[in-house]
Amino acid sequence: MSQYGLNATLSETEMDMPPPSDPSPWLPFQSRRRARDEKREAVLRAAVALFLEQGYHRATLTEVAERLNITKPALYNYFRGKDEILFECWAMGQERVDDLIAGINAEGGTGLVKLRRLVRAYGEVMATDFGASLVRFDVRDLSDKNAEVVRAAKRSIDHTFRGYITEGISDGSIKPCDAKLAAFAIAGSLNWIGHWYRSDGPLSPKAISEEFTDRLTEGLARRPAGAKPRVRLSR
Amino acid sequence: MSQYGLNATLSETEMDMPPPSDPSPWLPFQSRRRARDEKREAVLRAAVALFLEQGYHRATLTEVAERLNITKPALYNYFRGKDEILFECWAMGQERVDDLIAGINAEGGTGLVKLRRLVRAYGEVMATDFGASLVRFDVRDLSDKNAEVVRAAKRSIDHTFRGYITEGISDGSIKPCDAKLAAFAIAGSLNWIGHWYRSDGPLSPKAISEEFTDRLTEGLARRPAGAKPRVRLSR
Repeated sequence: MSQYGLNATLSETEMDMPPPSDPSPWLPFQSRRRARDEKREAVLRAAVALFLEQGYHRATLTEVAERLNITKPALYNYFRGKDEILFECWAMGQERVDDLIAGINAEGGTGLVKLRRLVRAYGEVMATDFGASLVRFDVRDLSDKNAEVVRAAKRSIDHTFRGYITEGISDGSIKPCDAKLAAFAIAGSLNWIGHWYRSDGPLSPKAISEEFTDRLTEGLARRPAGAKPRVRLSR
Repeated sequence: MSQYGLNATLSETEMDMPPPSDPSPWLPFQSRRRARDEKREAVLRAAVALFLEQGYHRATLTEVAERLNITKPALYNYFRGKDEILFECWAMGQERVDDLIAGINAEGGTGLVKLRRLVRAYGEVMATDFGASLVRFDVRDLSDKNAEVVRAAKRSIDHTFRGYITEGISDGSIKPCDAKLAAFAIAGSLNWIGHWYRSDGPLSPKAISEEFTDRLTEGLARRPAGAKPRVRLSR
């Protein structure tokens, strides 16, 4: 992630300028809102990268501001404080997880099919900074209210993994097992990606998530997914 | 873990008293050393529990001392400071992992057999406070020298998992796969136990580690471990 050189996006002048030759009276407002959202996200990208690099307690908002080439007080146009920024970094990651689960549920399929889709997509999210923020930070650094939101969301992710496994056992695609512990084993393995993955390392998120999909579900499948009939060579 | 009420063990008088009716002139010294080791470990047990409960940055040595009913300066008889205590907590967990790996290597067997033993034993260690300290704390809180020791040990654990898988592929007990990613998937799942396990929860370390052993290795096994021949019922 290298979302630093955002001076242009963050300059105050650009924020108030309507796009040139714009026919609609609505766009300047939308454009302003978009510019504001983009700046807000730029702050979160710089913050999450710094928090992950240095650890939340060592990282300072002064350095976040420096990386964005803005002043520290300018950050308070977007956020009330460091722990709110931490929460919003988490929320960015959580939103992606919510979206991918909604997509999987909409598409349907057996429990095993949904589980495999979840493993692949969640694994890829874990290899992003916002994804890692779901598992690398300490909820005790948040306000009590936000900590409770995060804890409830974590439980919900666990329940989704468990739910797909339970569905799979019911529909026969997954062999009988302790769905709760199987879900912990799978989610834990994926969560750990957020701890070890380095974007400058040799492994792509896609390669990791595909390998993990096979590794983490092949033992559960009642018949190995994608198994091909064996061809016996004549020697 | 509840190693708190250690006032007796930690009283200064007991430390200097030889065991009653002791025939050997050596034992008082050994006994003193043992008492010192016990006190030192009591400090580590109190510290690791507090660090895990509150997070390293929030926890104070004053509270560690309070829990042991000793003064904060008394802690400095055993450790030079908070980060040294953190390192020694990690070292207690690492020692258990080193021991169990040495035991597995001494016993021998196929790659799959050794991998399954490692999964079971490492999973149980992760459900202890010292085991959790291998994965819950931030190496950046240590001195540079100690951080390097920890990083090297983490790499060594990864290599042990990977080595058993590679051995298993060679000896035919494990089917061909990307040994590096398979090792990450398995170790990650086990490391995550250190994040979610609660000793007051419904799951015993043994139940967890047994279920995880099956879940995490059954897909890798060339033939499922412990598979029974299918009995076809006559209806």
